[in-house]
Amino acid sequence: MLFALLCGLVGLGGAVFLIRQVLNLPAGNERMRQIAGAIQEGAKAYLNRQIATIGAIAAVIFILLAIFRDFSTAAGFLLGAVCSLCAGYIGMRVAVVANVRTAQGATVSQKRALQAAFNGGAVTGLLVVGLALLSVGIFWLMMSWINPEKSIASLVGVALGASLISVFARLGGGIYTKAADVGADLVGKVESNLEEDDPRNPATIADNVGDNVGDCAGMAADVFETYAVALIGTVLVGALTAGLGAPVVFPFLLGGAAIIASLVGIVFVNVSNTTPTNALIGAVVVSSLLSAVFFWPLTSFLFPEGLRVRDVLSGAETVYSAGGVYFSSLLGLLMTGAAVFITNYYTATGHSPVRKIAEASVTGHATNIIAGLAVGLHATALPVLCIVASIWLSHSAAGLYGIAVAVMAMLSMSGIIISLDAFGPITDNAGGIAVMSGLPKSVRTITDELDAVGNTMKAVTKGYAIASAGLAAVVLFGSYFVDLKHHLESPASKLHLEPAQIEQALSFSLKDPKIIIGLFLGGLLPYLFSAFSMNAVGRAAGAVVTEVRRQLKQHPGILKGNDTPEYGTCVDIVTKAALKEMIVPALLPVVAVVVVAAIPDGMMILGGVLVGSIVTGLFMGISMTSSGGAWDNAKKYVEEGNFGGKGSEAHKAAVTGDTVGDPYKDTSGPAINPMIKVVNIVAILVIPIFF
Amino acid sequence: MLFALLCGLVGLGGAVFLIRQVLNLPAGNERMRQIAGAIQEGAKAYLNRQIATIGAIAAVIFILLAIFRDFSTAAGFLLGAVCSLCAGYIGMRVAVVANVRTAQGATVSQKRALQAAFNGGAVTGLLVVGLALLSVGIFWLMMSWINPEKSIASLVGVALGASLISVFARLGGGIYTKAADVGADLVGKVESNLEEDDPRNPATIADNVGDNVGDCAGMAADVFETYAVALIGTVLVGALTAGLGAPVVFPFLLGGAAIIASLVGIVFVNVSNTTPTNALIGAVVVSSLLSAVFFWPLTSFLFPEGLRVRDVLSGAETVYSAGGVYFSSLLGLLMTGAAVFITNYYTATGHSPVRKIAEASVTGHATNIIAGLAVGLHATALPVLCIVASIWLSHSAAGLYGIAVAVMAMLSMSGIIISLDAFGPITDNAGGIAVMSGLPKSVRTITDELDAVGNTMKAVTKGYAIASAGLAAVVLFGSYFVDLKHHLESPASKLHLEPAQIEQALSFSLKDPKIIIGLFLGGLLPYLFSAFSMNAVGRAAGAVVTEVRRQLKQHPGILKGNDTPEYGTCVDIVTKAALKEMIVPALLPVVAVVVVAAIPDGMMILGGVLVGSIVTGLFMGISMTSSGGAWDNAKKYVEEGNFGGKGSEAHKAAVTGDTVGDPYKDTSGPAINPMIKVVNIVAILVIPIFF
Repeated sequence: MLFALLCGLVGLGGAVFLIRQVLNLPAGNERMRQIAGAIQEGAKAYLNRQIATIGAIAAVIFILLAIFRDFSTAAGFLLGAVCSLCAGYIGMRVAVVANVRTAQGATVSQKRALQAAFNGGAVTGLLVVGLALLSVGIFWLMMSWINPEKSIASLVGVALGASLISVFARLGGGIYTKAADVGADLVGKVESNLEEDDPRNPATIADNVGDNVGDCAGMAADVFETYAVALIGTVLVGALTAGLGAPVVFPFLLGGAAIIASLVGIVFVNVSNTTPTNALIGAVVVSSLLSAVFFWPLTSFLFPEGLRVRDVLSGAETVYSAGGVYFSSLLGLLMTGAAVFITNYYTATGHSPVRKIAEASVTGHATNIIAGLAVGLHATALPVLCIVASIWLSHSAAGLYGIAVAVMAMLSMSGIIISLDAFGPITDNAGGIAVMSGLPKSVRTITDELDAVGNTMKAVTKGYAIASAGLAAVVLFGSYFVDLKHHLESPASKLHLEPAQIEQALSFSLKDPKIIIGLFLGGLLPYLFSAFSMNAVGRAAGAVVTEVRRQLKQHPGILKGNDTPEYGTCVDIVTKAALKEMIVPALLPVVAVVVVAAIPDGMMILGGVLVGSIVTGLFMGISMTSSGGAWDNAKKYVEEGNFGGKGSEAHKAAVTGDTVGDPYKDTSGPAINPMIKVVNIVAILVIPIFF
Repeated sequence: MLFALLCGLVGLGGAVFLIRQVLNLPAGNERMRQIAGAIQEGAKAYLNRQIATIGAIAAVIFILLAIFRDFSTAAGFLLGAVCSLCAGYIGMRVAVVANVRTAQGATVSQKRALQAAFNGGAVTGLLVVGLALLSVGIFWLMMSWINPEKSIASLVGVALGASLISVFARLGGGIYTKAADVGADLVGKVESNLEEDDPRNPATIADNVGDNVGDCAGMAADVFETYAVALIGTVLVGALTAGLGAPVVFPFLLGGAAIIASLVGIVFVNVSNTTPTNALIGAVVVSSLLSAVFFWPLTSFLFPEGLRVRDVLSGAETVYSAGGVYFSSLLGLLMTGAAVFITNYYTATGHSPVRKIAEASVTGHATNIIAGLAVGLHATALPVLCIVASIWLSHSAAGLYGIAVAVMAMLSMSGIIISLDAFGPITDNAGGIAVMSGLPKSVRTITDELDAVGNTMKAVTKGYAIASAGLAAVVLFGSYFVDLKHHLESPASKLHLEPAQIEQALSFSLKDPKIIIGLFLGGLLPYLFSAFSMNAVGRAAGAVVTEVRRQLKQHPGILKGNDTPEYGTCVDIVTKAALKEMIVPALLPVVAVVVVAAIPDGMMILGGVLVGSIVTGLFMGISMTSSGGAWDNAKKYVEEGNFGGKGSEAHKAAVTGDTVGDPYKDTSGPAINPMIKVVNIVAILVIPIFF
C-alpha cells in the first residue's frame, strides 16, 4: 500500500517537474499573451461560478447524506467532490498556460509545439491519476483506522462525490463549449464567411474558453471520476467477496505501477523523433507493455496462494490462481488497446467510415447526416463484442473480482490516455491564439496538423472512457447486489426478510416482470438525459447566434475590422446558459433512483434500472461519440481538398455534420459515462435508507 | 371459436363490399389512368421479384425446419409466410386502385377524396385482420385435430413465417421507398428546383411506386405479423400456463369482436361530417369504446369462475378474477389510445415539438437536425412509461396471461388503425397522379391537406406498432421461458439436466455475467440492423442520384419538358438495390440467435439476448419513428408559410431534416418492430434443436 502511495507521489512529482518545464517555455509576444489572458480570465470566471453552483448543490447532498446515511459517507462524498472539482480546475489551469506556449512553439517547429501541448496534457494526466490514487488510498487508510465498519460505506461516498460532480462538470462544460462552438460556427462561418477563430467573430473568445472548460476541465473531472470509481469498485468487490487483505491493496498497486509506466511513456514522446500520431500511439504502447511487465511480480507477490473468494452467486468458496488474476489485468490492458484501435478506425481520416461520410457530403447535407448516423450505429459492434469478451474471460479467470481487476488495469492507463486527450484542446486553442494575434500562416498550418491528430486522439479517448465506464458500471452493479445481500441479511435491514424471502427478492430474474419494468425504466434514463442535454446546447447556441447577429447588425464596423466586438456578452450568455441547463439532467439519475427505491418492490425494479441504464447508456455513448468524431474528421478530410475541398457544397454539408456531431461527441455522449455510474452508486447508497 | 371465425368472415365480407365500392368510383381521365398504370406496373413488378427472392429464402428455411424441427412446424412456417406475403400483396393492389380514384375524387370534393382513400385503406385493414384471424384459427383447429401434441410448436412456425417475411417486406419495401424518395428529392427538389412529383424528374415514378411497396405492402405485412404474433403469443401463454380451453379461445374472440367494432368505425368515417382528422380519430374512439363494451360479456362468458393459472415463477396455482382479465383487455385498448395520443403530440404540426424543430431550421441545417434528434430521444419517455404501467397493471391483474391479453386487445384495433395508416400513402400517390396528369391546382391542394393528415396518422400508427411490438416481444420472451422449462423437464431434452440444474439454468438472473453478456449482445442487434439498413438506403439513394444526374445531363430536354425521362431505369435501380440490400440485415437476427444458442451456456446467454434486443429495440424504434415524423411535419409547417415559408433558407434546412428522417421513420425504425419478434420466435424454435 505504501509502495502504491509512493508511486502516486512520484506521479505528482513528475507533474510538478513538467509544470516547471511548461512554465519555462516562452509565452509569446504581447498580443498573444493578451489573448491568452482573455481566454484564461473567461475560463476562470466560468469555473468559479460553476464551483459556486455545484458547491451549493453538493452542500445540500452532504447534509442529506449526513442525516439519512452517516457522517463518514458524507465526509467521503465531500472528499470525492472536492477532488473532482480540483481535477477539473487543474486541467483548466494547465491548459490555459500551455496553449499560448504551444502557439509560440509552433513559430519555431512542429516538434516544439507538440512537446508544449503534450507536456501540458501530461501534467493533467499525472496530477489527476496521482490525486485519485492518493486521495482514495489515504482516505481508506484513515477510515480503516478510525472507523473500520464504515470504511466501505464511506468509500462509496467518495465515489458518489466524484461521479456526481463529474456529471455536472461534463454537462456544464459540455453545454458551454458546444453552445459557443455551434453558435460561433453558425453565424461566423456559415453566414459571414469568417474563418475559424477570426477575431471579428464576437463569439470567438467564448469558443476558445469553451475548449478549456469543456474539453480540459470537464474531461479531467470525468477521468478522475472513472479512475476513482474503478479503484473503489475493485476495493469494494475485493473487500466484500475476498476479504480485506491483498484483494484490497492490489488495485492500488496496479494504479501505482501504471503511473511509473506512464512516466516512461511521457519521456518517450519527448525524446522520439517520429510523426505526432506515431509518437502518441507509441507512448500508449510503451506504457501498456511496461505495465504488463510490472503487473506480474505484483500479482504473484500479493497472491502467492491464489485468490480465495466467496462466489456471489452460489456463496461457495472458489480459489482462482494468481495467473487468473494477472490474466484479468492483461485483459484490461488489451481492452485499452482495442478501444484505441477500434475508435481510431471509425473516426480517423485514413479509414473508410470517415471517407464514406465525406463522400456522402457530395450528395448533400442529408446524406452526410445519414452516413454519420449509420457510422455511429455500426461503431457499437466491435467495442461491445470486446466488452462482452472481457467480461466472459475475466469472470472465468477470477470471478467478479476478475472483471473489477480488468477495469482497474484498463483505467490504470488513464495517466497517459489523458495526456493524449488534453493535447487536443490545447492545440486547438493554440491555433486560435495564432490566428487572433496575427501570427504567420505557417504557424496555423502546424497547429492545424496537430489539431487533426488531437481530434482523433480525443475521439479515441472517448471510446476508451465509455468502454471502461460500461465495464466499471457492471462492477458497480455487482457491488450493489453483494452489498444489498449483506444488508438484507444484517439486523440493520428495515424489511426483516426471512432467508427464503431474501433469496426471492435477490433473484433479479428476467422472468420477473418487475425486472423487465426496471430494465425499461433504466434504459430510459440515458435517453431522457441526452434529450435534455441536446436541447440545452440547441437553446444556448441559439442565444449565441441571436447575440452575434445583433452585434454584427448594430456595429457594421466589426466585420470590416474597424470595431472590436464585445466578446464579454457572448461569454456571459453561455456561462449563464450552461450553469442553468446542467442542473435538471445532472439530478435526473439521482432523483430517478431514489423514486424507484421508494416505491413498493423498489428493490427488484431498481436492479433492473441499474442494468437497463448500463445497456442503453453504453450503446448511446459509443454511437454518439463515434458519429461525432467521424463527422468532425470527415469535415477535416474535405478541407484537405477532397470532394471539392473548402468552400464547396460538399464542405458545407460536412460542416453541418460536424455541427450536429458537436453536442453528440462533446456534451451528451461523454456525459452518459459518469451518469450511468451515478445511477449505480446512488443505488448502493440508498440501500440502508429504504430497505 | 366458431363465433370468432365468423367475425373474421364478416370482416372479409366487409372488405369485399368496400372493394366493390372503391372499384365503382370513377378512375379519372386517360392521362391519370396511364400514370396510375405505370405506378401499378412498377409496384407489381417489384413485388413479384420480391416474392421470388423471399420465396427462395423461405424455401430454404422451410427445408431446414422440416429437417431440424418437424414437418408441422415447417407447415406452419409456410402458412405464416404465404399469408404475410398475401397481406402485403393485397395492401399494394388495393392502394394502386384507390390512389387514382382518390385523385379523381379530389376533383369533386375533399369529402369524396377522403372516402376513396380511407375506404381503400380500410379494405387492407379488414383483409389483413380477417386473414390473420382465420388462418391462425383454422390452422390451430386443424392441428389440434390432426396432431394435438405438435399444435403449439406449429403455431410458433406460423409466427416465424409471418415475422420473418415481414422483416423482409419492411426492409425491402422500406429501402425501395426511401432510396427512391431521397434520391428524387436530392436532385429534383434541391438541385433542379423541381416540385414534388414533377413529371420531369426521372425518379418520380419510382418514388410513387415506393409509397405502394413500402408504406402499403410493407406496412400490411408488418401489421399482419404483429397481429398474428400477438394472437399466437396469447394462445401460447394461455395453453402453457392455463390449459387448452377458454384461455386459448379468448384471444380469438377479442379479435373477432374488435373486427365488428372496426366495421362500425369505418361506417362512422363514411357518414360523419367533420374535419378529416376528427373523422379518423373519431373512428378509433368509436371502435375502442365499442370493443370495450363487447369484451365484457365475452370475458364473463368464458371465465365464469375466473382464470386458473400455474404461475411461471413459483409454479403455484393462482386464480385471477374475470374482472382482472377484462381489466387487462381494457389496458390494451387504453394503450392504443395512449400511443395514438402521445405520438400525435410529438409529430403533429399543432404541438410544440414540431414547431421547435421548424424554429430551429431558421438557424440552419445543423440546428434542425439537433432539434429533431432531441425530439426523438425525448419522445421515448411517455410511451415507455405507459408500457411499464401496462406490464405492471396487467401482470398484477392476470399474470403473464394478463400481459398477453393486453397486447391482444391492443392489436385487435389493427383493422381500424391500418385503415388510418394506409390512408397516408394513398393520398400521397393521389397527389402525385394529380400533378403528373396536369389536374388543376385545387386538386393538389385537397390531396396536400389530406396528405398532411396522412403523415400524422402514419407516425401515429408507427408509435402504436412499436409500442405493441415491445409488449408482444415481452410476451414472447415469457413464452420462451415457459417453453424452455417444459422442454428441459421433458425426456426429449438433449441436456438431461437434474431439477436443481434446471432451476439454476433458468434463473436468468442479472447477477449472472452470462445474462449481462446476453443483454449486451441482444442490445447490439437493433444497432447493427439499423446501421445496415440506413447504409443501404444511403447507397441506393446515391445510385438514384447518379442516374438522375446522368439523364438530366445527357438529355437537357427533360428539364425543359421536351423530352420524356426514362422512368424505368430508376425503378430498376431501386428494385435491384432493395432486393440485394434487404437480405443481410433480415437474416442477422436469425443467424445471431442460432449462433448464440450453439455456444456453451448458450441457453442462458440467449435469455439475455432476447431481453436485450427488446430493450434497445423499443427505444430505437420509438425514437427513430418519432424523429422522422416530427421532421416531416416540421417541413410541412414551414411550407405552410411559417419561418419564411417555401424557398427560404429555413425551408432548405427543414427539407434536410425530412430527408434524414426518411430512412429513420420508414426503413430502420419500423423494421425493428418485426425484427425483435423474429429474435424471440427463433429462440423458441431452436429450443429442441440445441437444448
